[in-house]
Amino acid sequence: MARIDYFNDPNAPKANSVVPSVTAVVTDDEQRILLVHKTDNDLWALPGGGMDLGESITDAAVRETKEETGVDIEVTGLIGVYTNPRHVLAYDDGEVRQQFSLCFTTRNLGGELSTSSETKEVKWVAPTDLDSLNIHPSMRLRIDHYLEHRPAPYLG
Amino acid sequence: MARIDYFNDPNAPKANSVVPSVTAVVTDDEQRILLVHKTDNDLWALPGGGMDLGESITDAAVRETKEETGVDIEVTGLIGVYTNPRHVLAYDDGEVRQQFSLCFTTRNLGGELSTSSETKEVKWVAPTDLDSLNIHPSMRLRIDHYLEHRPAPYLG
Repeated sequence: MARIDYFNDPNAPKANSVVPSVTAVVTDDEQRILLVHKTDNDLWALPGGGMDLGESITDAAVRETKEETGVDIEVTGLIGVYTNPRHVLAYDDGEVRQQFSLCFTTRNLGGELSTSSETKEVKWVAPTDLDSLNIHPSMRLRIDHYLEHRPAPYLG
Repeated sequence: MARIDYFNDPNAPKANSVVPSVTAVVTDDEQRILLVHKTDNDLWALPGGGMDLGESITDAAVRETKEETGVDIEVTGLIGVYTNPRHVLAYDDGEVRQQFSLCFTTRNLGGELSTSSETKEVKWVAPTDLDSLNIHPSMRLRIDHYLEHRPAPYLG
């Protein structure tokens, strides 16, 4: 399903839904960050997605990371809470979803990198290589918050 | 609207919705905690409620605290993320809402205590008096996490 991100855009459509969602920062032994190349908007992103009914938000982080990248993780901490109402995602079925996303730190438990229907590439990216990829500003914000090693979670 | 809380109950109905929600720990100069006596389930609770579309989760904490107690606050930190899928709230219109709630620390900016349609009493409660009030275990957990001064937010 195609989607358009509106970020602090006064012409954004009005939100008609909110789905608690999650992203996960997963690193390898070289401190490279696991990123996926998403099929829905052609951008690079942290693995993640919407929470299903019947699971917790930390369950969702584990499940989505496994589905999108093949990597097993456990959640170790919280980077931030991202609920800026001026960030909405418009899908082609008419849903306009207001951003509501938590970003977690994780422990990498291993697994072979693999793609999925939602991710056409999966790779480890060194922090110095982030600028060479097309990453949405809202996603880059979370990665930057991780790299800053903030003493307390971002609350926005 | 009446509601029933099911908490780790194998006979709970299946959730059909999730609404990001918030509670706020507000204290006075004597370190007493602001609690409300809720009309919907007759229990004592931290002020809070569901996030509206168009606001952030921290906006929701400020708005709900003002509406339910009359007190102005600002959010200062995060006590925890409470998304246990085995906690559901059944409303009499058929909605069965899976818990998804963030609990914030706050700065008390003042204001006169006042009740609302959702709160029949509002008062400051010393931690040593908590056991005398009927407080749901899931709410007491958040208050206890606050009182423990945990070094990082609870993630559950």
